[in-house]
Amino acid sequence: MLRCIRPQGLRIRPLTQPSQSAVNALQRPLNYSQYKFPGLRKYTTSTSSSTSSSGSHVPPPPPQKPTRSRLYRAGRAFILLGVGVPVIGSLAWYGYDMYFEAKGDILHQRRPRHIIGGPKNLVMTHGCEGSVLKAEEIHQNDPRQRLVILGSGWGAVSVIKQLDPKKFHVTVVSPTNYFLFTPLLPSATVGTLELRSLIEPIRRLLSRLGGYYLEGRAEDVDFENQLVEVSGIHDSEGRKFYVPYDKLIIAVGSEAMTHGVEGLEHCNFLKSIADARDIRRKVMENFEKASLPTTTEEERRQLLSFVICGGGPTGVEFAAELYDFLNEDLVGYFPAIPPEEVQVNIIQSAGHILNTYDLKISEMTERKFKRDNIGVVTNARVAKVNPKSVIYKEKATGKEFEIPFGVCLWSTGVGMTPLVKMLVSKLPTGSQSNIHAIETDAYMRVIGTPEGTVYAIGDCATIPQPHFVDKVMTILKEHDTNGDNLLSYDEFKTLALDIAAKHTVLKVFLGHLGNVFERYDKDHSGFLDLDEIRTFLTDAEKQCTALPATAQVANQQGDYVGKRINTLHEIEHAEAAAKFPPFKYTHKGSLAYIGGSDAVLDMGKGLVYGGIGSEYLWRSVYFSEQVSGRTRLLLFIDWSKRALFGRDISKF
Amino acid sequence: MLRCIRPQGLRIRPLTQPSQSAVNALQRPLNYSQYKFPGLRKYTTSTSSSTSSSGSHVPPPPPQKPTRSRLYRAGRAFILLGVGVPVIGSLAWYGYDMYFEAKGDILHQRRPRHIIGGPKNLVMTHGCEGSVLKAEEIHQNDPRQRLVILGSGWGAVSVIKQLDPKKFHVTVVSPTNYFLFTPLLPSATVGTLELRSLIEPIRRLLSRLGGYYLEGRAEDVDFENQLVEVSGIHDSEGRKFYVPYDKLIIAVGSEAMTHGVEGLEHCNFLKSIADARDIRRKVMENFEKASLPTTTEEERRQLLSFVICGGGPTGVEFAAELYDFLNEDLVGYFPAIPPEEVQVNIIQSAGHILNTYDLKISEMTERKFKRDNIGVVTNARVAKVNPKSVIYKEKATGKEFEIPFGVCLWSTGVGMTPLVKMLVSKLPTGSQSNIHAIETDAYMRVIGTPEGTVYAIGDCATIPQPHFVDKVMTILKEHDTNGDNLLSYDEFKTLALDIAAKHTVLKVFLGHLGNVFERYDKDHSGFLDLDEIRTFLTDAEKQCTALPATAQVANQQGDYVGKRINTLHEIEHAEAAAKFPPFKYTHKGSLAYIGGSDAVLDMGKGLVYGGIGSEYLWRSVYFSEQVSGRTRLLLFIDWSKRALFGRDISKF
Repeated sequence: MLRCIRPQGLRIRPLTQPSQSAVNALQRPLNYSQYKFPGLRKYTTSTSSSTSSSGSHVPPPPPQKPTRSRLYRAGRAFILLGVGVPVIGSLAWYGYDMYFEAKGDILHQRRPRHIIGGPKNLVMTHGCEGSVLKAEEIHQNDPRQRLVILGSGWGAVSVIKQLDPKKFHVTVVSPTNYFLFTPLLPSATVGTLELRSLIEPIRRLLSRLGGYYLEGRAEDVDFENQLVEVSGIHDSEGRKFYVPYDKLIIAVGSEAMTHGVEGLEHCNFLKSIADARDIRRKVMENFEKASLPTTTEEERRQLLSFVICGGGPTGVEFAAELYDFLNEDLVGYFPAIPPEEVQVNIIQSAGHILNTYDLKISEMTERKFKRDNIGVVTNARVAKVNPKSVIYKEKATGKEFEIPFGVCLWSTGVGMTPLVKMLVSKLPTGSQSNIHAIETDAYMRVIGTPEGTVYAIGDCATIPQPHFVDKVMTILKEHDTNGDNLLSYDEFKTLALDIAAKHTVLKVFLGHLGNVFERYDKDHSGFLDLDEIRTFLTDAEKQCTALPATAQVANQQGDYVGKRINTLHEIEHAEAAAKFPPFKYTHKGSLAYIGGSDAVLDMGKGLVYGGIGSEYLWRSVYFSEQVSGRTRLLLFIDWSKRALFGRDISKF
Repeated sequence: MLRCIRPQGLRIRPLTQPSQSAVNALQRPLNYSQYKFPGLRKYTTSTSSSTSSSGSHVPPPPPQKPTRSRLYRAGRAFILLGVGVPVIGSLAWYGYDMYFEAKGDILHQRRPRHIIGGPKNLVMTHGCEGSVLKAEEIHQNDPRQRLVILGSGWGAVSVIKQLDPKKFHVTVVSPTNYFLFTPLLPSATVGTLELRSLIEPIRRLLSRLGGYYLEGRAEDVDFENQLVEVSGIHDSEGRKFYVPYDKLIIAVGSEAMTHGVEGLEHCNFLKSIADARDIRRKVMENFEKASLPTTTEEERRQLLSFVICGGGPTGVEFAAELYDFLNEDLVGYFPAIPPEEVQVNIIQSAGHILNTYDLKISEMTERKFKRDNIGVVTNARVAKVNPKSVIYKEKATGKEFEIPFGVCLWSTGVGMTPLVKMLVSKLPTGSQSNIHAIETDAYMRVIGTPEGTVYAIGDCATIPQPHFVDKVMTILKEHDTNGDNLLSYDEFKTLALDIAAKHTVLKVFLGHLGNVFERYDKDHSGFLDLDEIRTFLTDAEKQCTALPATAQVANQQGDYVGKRINTLHEIEHAEAAAKFPPFKYTHKGSLAYIGGSDAVLDMGKGLVYGGIGSEYLWRSVYFSEQVSGRTRLLLFIDWSKRALFGRDISKF
C-alpha cells in the first residue's frame, strides 16, 4: 500500500525577523549588576563593603513614600491602563502599517509573475502583464525600465555596480551564478589563492538593486519584440522561456580561438573555475603517477612536461605560477621524482612572449624564464595536438618539432561564443563584418539593432576599425569638389564631419577644426595635399585602434554603459545620445606575474618596471581592483596563508 | 619532417640550498646604522649631535696606534695567511663532509630502488634488494623495519604521529593523498568551512619520518611473503606492484552499508571531499533550477526537499548545517522561492535520532528540530530509493510512505571495503567470523596472521565479542570437573584463565581472582551457582563491548599501535607482546552540532549539555583535535569568515 504524504514544510524565518540567537539574547534576563552608573559609584561601593564586612555598617534605609488611599491608587491604575493601552496599541499598529507601507507590495516584489506570450508562446518572466506590448502601461505606474544583462563577468558586474536601483528592474541571465576575478585565475590554479577568494555571487551583487538572477543560457534575442530566449542549463526537458527587456546588455565574453588546430580536446583551457580545478587535479595526478614504481622514465618525462600554447599574459602567468608551485612545494614533497625531469615550455607564435606589452617587459620576462629554465619557443605555430604530445612548426624554416606533455594549456586568441555568432548572423546585412565580436558604435550600442535598446561590452564587443589610409584616394576624390587634388578648409570640413559622424570616438580629436587644419597644413599653403591628407588620416586612424580583450577594457565599458543608461534611462534617440560623450578607453597599464616573487608592470609610454618589490605592486593593483571587501580580505588571508604554510599539495 | 626534441629540463633548486629570497637577503648590503651597541650609545649620540649642530663641537680624534716597521707587518700578514687559510679551508671541508655524513646516502634515500620479484614477479618498491627474503641482510646495516600503512584516515595518521623515525622505513598506500578531518565534513558541505581547511597532505605528515607515499589501492596482501599488492589508481594499463613489509597496518576504513536497499545510486554519501562537493553542487543547482520561471510548483517541491536516511551524528549534523545554510543564506538571496516549499526530513530506523547518545541528548535534538520544522521520522526503514523519491516503511504498521526529494543523503551503517572482504575470506577458516570488519585480538593484531606482523585499526577492525551468557550451560559443564553444577574456586580459576587468554581485554577485570570470586559468591557458600556464574559472565561480557566506528576509536587505536610498535619494533612474540598492555578505549564523550548555534555534548555517565555556549564548546573540542597548527588556524579563519560574510552561494 503506497500512500503519498506531503511532509511538513520547513518554517524558515523571514529576513525581517530577528534571528533566533538575537531572540535568545533578548529573552535572557539582563544582569543589571554589570552596569555601573558613575553617579552611583560611591553609594554602590559603600553597599558592597557593608555586606562584605559582616554588617558592621548598616546602610541608611531608603526614604519611605507617604501612604495614599486605596481609591487613589485604583483610580490611577484605571486611568493609566485606559489611556496607556490604546495609545501603545495604536502606536504598535501604526508601526506595523508603516513597516509594510515602506516594504510595498511584498507578494509581487518577492515573486516574479509568469505569463505565456511572445512569438513562440513561451513562459515569460516578470515585468509585463498580459503581453510584452503592454510595457508602456506598466511604465505609467512604475518609472523603472526592464534591464536585462547577459553574462556575469567583468562587463556585467561593472554595469551592475553603476546602476541606479530607482531606474531599473534588473535581470541577469548567465550560466554561472558568480563573478570570477579572472586575472588571478593562474594563481588559484596552483593553489596560491583559494578559488572561493576570487568569486563574488551575482545574487549578492544584485541585492542592492533588488534584481533577479536566472541561471540559464541565452539562446536567442528577438530584437523586434525585445525578448531574450533563455534555456535553463540543467533543465533536462530543454524548456525555454522569454525574458522581456527595454534595454539589453550583451556581456557574454568570448571562447578560446582554435585557429583551426586539430586535437584541442587534449588541451586544458583557463577561463573558468572548472578549468582551474581540472588543471590542478591533473598536475597533482601526474606527480603522483610519476612517483609510482611501475612508471617508466619515458612516461615520467611525459607526465612531468607542461606545455603552454600562447605567450600572452595568461600563458606567462600560468608558467610562472606553475614554476613556483613545482619549485617551492612539489619537488620537496616528492622525493621519488628527479627534478631534472620536470619541464615547462611556452610556445608563442610572435617573436616575443607578452608581445602586446613594451619590448623591455618581454625581454625582462624572457631573461627571467631563461634563469628558471622555463623553455620559450618563439616564432612557432602549433600545428596539431596529439593525446600526449604537441607538434609545432617553426615559422621561418617550416620544420616540425614534437614535445610530449602531461598537461597542455591552450591560451591563445579570442573567439565568438555560439550566441554571439548567431546574433551577428541575424543582424541586418552590412551592419556586422567582424569575425571575432559584435560590432558596436562608439556608444557601445550594437550596430543594426533598434536605437538605444541593445548594448554590447567586453570581449564579445568591438568598435569597428576605420581603414582611412587604404582608401585615401577614394576619400580625396569624394570630398575634392573642384578636382584639384587638394583640399581647401571647406572641403576638409565636410570630410572631417563625415568621419566624425561615423566614428564618434574622433569627436575630441577633431575638436577645433581650424586648428586641426592648420596643424596638418605643414607648408601653410591653405590647402592639404595628398601627403598632408595621408598624415592626417593616419593620425585619425590611430585614435581608434581596436581595444584588447582584457578585463580592464570590459570594466571601463561596463562603467560607461552603466552611467550612460542611468542618465538616459527613459529616452534614447540621436539627440539624447549625442549629449553623452562616446566611450573612451584609458589604459591604466598592464602587468604580469613572472614567478619567484617578480612581476612586470607596463604603465604605458615606455614606463616599465620589474624587480624588487614588483610583486607587491602587482598584488596591490589586484587588491584594489576587487569587487567587494569580502574578496579583498580573502585575498589578503590567502597570500598570508601561502607565506606561512606553502601551497596545499592534496589532490582533489 | 618530424623531429623529436627533448626540451631543457627545469632546474629546480634542491631543498638543501637556501631559497632565492634568502640569497637575495644575504646579498643585500647590511645597513649597520640600524644596529645600536649599548656601550657605544653615548659616543654615537655625541657624533650625531656634532654633525647636526654644524660642527660647533668637534669630537676628539681616535687614539693613534704606534707605527711598526714594514717588515713586521709583512711577516705578520704572511703568518696569518699561511696559517689561517688552511685552517679555515679544512674547517669548511670538514663541515661539508660532516653535512653529507649526517645526510647519509642521499641518492638512495631520495630514490627508492625498484626490483622485480615476489610470487607474481611484479615490480617491488624500496627496502629490499634482490628478493624479499634478503630482508635480514638489510637489517644488519639498518636497524629500521619496513612499516607499511594502508589508508590515510584517522587510524593511519594517529600511527604516523606516534612513530619513531629511527625505527621505521614508513610507506603509506592510499587512494587519497591527504588526511580528511571527517567530523567537520557536514560543515564543509554547506560552506561553513572550506574543504581545504579540513585536510592535511599525507606527504607533509610523513616528512618528519622521511617516509614514502604511494597513490594506489591495495589489491591484495600476501601474508606469508609479507607483500602488499598495489595498483596505481590512475594507471590505465592496470599495472600492479609489490610493497614488502615487516609490519603492516590496515587502516582502510569502511564503506556505506546498503542494508540491501535498492536504488542507492540515486543517493549522495558523505565520506569524502568529492561527496561533500557533489552535495553542495546539487543543493545550489536545485535552488537555481527552482528559481526558473519554467519550473512548476510540483517540481519545485521535489527539488527543494532534502531527505536524510540515517539519524546518526553525520545525518543529524548535516540536517542542522543544511538548515542553517537554507535559513541564513539561501532563502534571502532567492526571492523567487517560497520558503514554505523548502523541506528537510530525517528517516531513522531506531526510536530516536542520535540513538547511541544519552536519551536526554536525543530528546533535546528532537525538540530543537521540531522548532525548526525539520521532520524526524523514527521507527521507519527505507524500503527503496527511486530517482526522485524515497519509499519508507513504518516498522510498527508496515505501511509504506513516499517522500519526493531533490537530494537524498544516505548515512547509515558501516560495511567492509572490497579489500577487507577479500582479506577476511583469505584468512584461515574459523579465525574470522564478523561480517562488518576484520577481527583482531586485544592488541589490535589481526587474528589468523603471522604473529605481530599485521595490525588492523579503525572502522575496518573489530575486537570479537564474546557470547558467554548464551553459552553459560556449556561453559559451566566444561569447567565443572566434579559435575555438581557448582564451581569451586579452583574450577573458577581455570574458567577465568581460559576467558582471559581468549579476551585479553579482560585481564584487568580478572586481576585478583580471589577477590573476583568472593565478589560474585554472594551467599559466601565457597561455590558459584548457576545464577552467580551468569552474573559474572554478564559483567565480563560488558567489559568487552564492540567499539563504535568513530574517529575517536580509530584515533586511540592508532595511538596505541604506534606506541606499541615503537616499543616492540624488532621482536613481536607472545612474551614480548604480553609486556605491553592490551588496547583500552577511553570514551571522551560524543558531540553533535544541531543547528542555530546549538550543539549537544554527551560526556558519558549521564552527563549531558546543550544550550547557551554549547556551539563554542563543540568548536573548541574540534579545534583542539586538529592534526596540525595549519588546519587549526584555517578553522579559526573560516569560522570568522562565516560570521563576517555568511556562506558563499556560488555554484561550482
